[in-house]
Amino acid sequence: MKQMDTEKLLMIPGPTVVPTRVLNVMALPIIGHRTKDFGELTEDTVDKMKQVFQTKNESYIVTGSGTAVMDMAIANTVDKGDKVLNIVNGAFGDRFYKISSVYKADAIKLENEWGDLADPNAVKEILDENEDIKAVTIVHNETSSGAKNPIEEIGNVVKDYNALYIVDTISSLGGDYVHVDKFNIDICVTGSQKCIAAPPGLSAISVSEKAFEVVNKTETKSFYLDLKAYKKSWDKNKETPYTPSVSLTYGLNEALEMVLEEGLEKRFERHEKLAKATRAGLEAMGMELFAKEKARSVTVTSAKYPEGVDDKKFRGLLAEKYNIRVAGGQADLTGKIFRVGHMGSAKEYHVLGTLAAIELAFEELGINADGGVSAAKEMLLK
Amino acid sequence: MKQMDTEKLLMIPGPTVVPTRVLNVMALPIIGHRTKDFGELTEDTVDKMKQVFQTKNESYIVTGSGTAVMDMAIANTVDKGDKVLNIVNGAFGDRFYKISSVYKADAIKLENEWGDLADPNAVKEILDENEDIKAVTIVHNETSSGAKNPIEEIGNVVKDYNALYIVDTISSLGGDYVHVDKFNIDICVTGSQKCIAAPPGLSAISVSEKAFEVVNKTETKSFYLDLKAYKKSWDKNKETPYTPSVSLTYGLNEALEMVLEEGLEKRFERHEKLAKATRAGLEAMGMELFAKEKARSVTVTSAKYPEGVDDKKFRGLLAEKYNIRVAGGQADLTGKIFRVGHMGSAKEYHVLGTLAAIELAFEELGINADGGVSAAKEMLLK
Repeated sequence: MKQMDTEKLLMIPGPTVVPTRVLNVMALPIIGHRTKDFGELTEDTVDKMKQVFQTKNESYIVTGSGTAVMDMAIANTVDKGDKVLNIVNGAFGDRFYKISSVYKADAIKLENEWGDLADPNAVKEILDENEDIKAVTIVHNETSSGAKNPIEEIGNVVKDYNALYIVDTISSLGGDYVHVDKFNIDICVTGSQKCIAAPPGLSAISVSEKAFEVVNKTETKSFYLDLKAYKKSWDKNKETPYTPSVSLTYGLNEALEMVLEEGLEKRFERHEKLAKATRAGLEAMGMELFAKEKARSVTVTSAKYPEGVDDKKFRGLLAEKYNIRVAGGQADLTGKIFRVGHMGSAKEYHVLGTLAAIELAFEELGINADGGVSAAKEMLLK
Repeated sequence: MKQMDTEKLLMIPGPTVVPTRVLNVMALPIIGHRTKDFGELTEDTVDKMKQVFQTKNESYIVTGSGTAVMDMAIANTVDKGDKVLNIVNGAFGDRFYKISSVYKADAIKLENEWGDLADPNAVKEILDENEDIKAVTIVHNETSSGAKNPIEEIGNVVKDYNALYIVDTISSLGGDYVHVDKFNIDICVTGSQKCIAAPPGLSAISVSEKAFEVVNKTETKSFYLDLKAYKKSWDKNKETPYTPSVSLTYGLNEALEMVLEEGLEKRFERHEKLAKATRAGLEAMGMELFAKEKARSVTVTSAKYPEGVDDKKFRGLLAEKYNIRVAGGQADLTGKIFRVGHMGSAKEYHVLGTLAAIELAFEELGINADGGVSAAKEMLLK
């Protein structure tokens, strides 16, 4: 493999910085995936995953990116013509809509502006008008915009209807408060490479009994992502139906162990503190935050570029001169916003160093951006 | 992560022993997957993969196990009611049939006994009788039985028909002679964890122009495994549509580099030599090989258990006392055969040590099995 600069600080909204403890287990030799040892490791990983999901529901680890389990959630519950409500206020909410469309669902889009949140009352209205809605999909934390949705409140609405509640917590689980059982989430999907701080390539899905009843009546529309096959292999041997990624399972297990060692509450507090510091820092520099105040994510912060700042120049400076990667905007937001991830294993020094480098980069581009670090420090002292 | 015994020698037919050079890059920090660095790495990995496929066809790396790309091959070319010929002489040939059934193909099964090979003339007959066959599927190397199919000869038949030729080389590519372009393979799929000797979790697919013409006319039936999306992202940015597994890409790149450093011809010769030594060794011990002589794999050897040998006891002894894992039989062959993988980075000392330990294990179970190592040595001297 060619030499690469693997020392740049990842402050993008995933993949995130993976702790050395986790990287180290990635280099362990491969063991047979149908052995007792690997079976125990898988069971332990699933058990830890359930603790992080905060659920008693059956959960499965899938070799594939987060999109694989988003696809799995829909493919296994929605048949052609089934009515689905897709709540969309960002690229990933829209991905659920696109997936629903692949399976020819009768998809209703409840759209909000990117950066805003979905309104539980609007969800209730649509459910009242459409008693036959089979599933409601929502993204907890919209990585694309830096906004979060009130999934607890919407779960409280959906629970009184027949519809399944399908929630993407890919960039929130392990960083922001998610309680699958208390939030009445029927299918919760997540990825390894965001707040859990494992390498990318694994994803996880939790499935309630109510969801399984639907799965059992749904046409099998995917072979690789067939939930029935996952359940069967699990119930029989605590195995995955197809060869799992052994190394990534090592990594995910170790990363989940670190999540549980820190404790979920403390981890949520850390994410919130870092989010507040990032927001305060960017605002003190004169930036306008993109997500509405009531909707701001605790794992990623988006800010509008000041007039005249070139996205590529700014992020290029940050990456090449200061060795920090932040993300640009997606789709219509390309060139208009930048996004700072502060999730997973992020610590104060990552955020403070990033804010200081952002000040420098803006100053080099002729924008006065002093005061960000000071404001962040103040916030951290509170 | 709990302590595990990661020192057992893997002589199973995948995952195989991963060289230290490859394991080392697995522990490198994660880089952003939408960066120039990662783009170059992906391009280089795909380029190396194409050299191993021996093809000019577009090829893609997919985060998922081999089954993911088997699924991808069918989902993107076969619509409901389309006629498909599934050549089946083992569990993986049957997997293509099952996948075809998920997509409601009109699937014709051409069955041969497990351990035997498919007959090109029988394929020709079926194609002559069914001009509307859209795809022919075959597994090159049947890991389940230790038999290989004549994919070159069958490719020579299929090329005169409209049907696409879809070949699974998951447990042969990089170990046995495969030449996608010369064999007229339209879609070739493979996995990372067999003869390429990378960790499991990535798979690859090559797609001919003829296949793309079919893909473009085929209904999109999967979101995660949508070939059109892979092509679009690749053509636009040399990227994958969804977050790839960064660490596994490091590993695959390094493993492919080692394949190309050794050279394909030399690698095929090594596999053949080790296969011959393994066969000679087991036969000298008095075992009957399972696969028919004309059909024997060069990457995995299957042998029937002598009367009265308990599969679990035998493999337990090998694993627990001698630290070597070999595989048992699958499906109907459970308890009847065992399988020794000698693929990927396997060397003489692995095979010789394994044969010696098999002698010991059989002797402990009351079976005289002397002479295996001697016969293997003799074969290696030829």
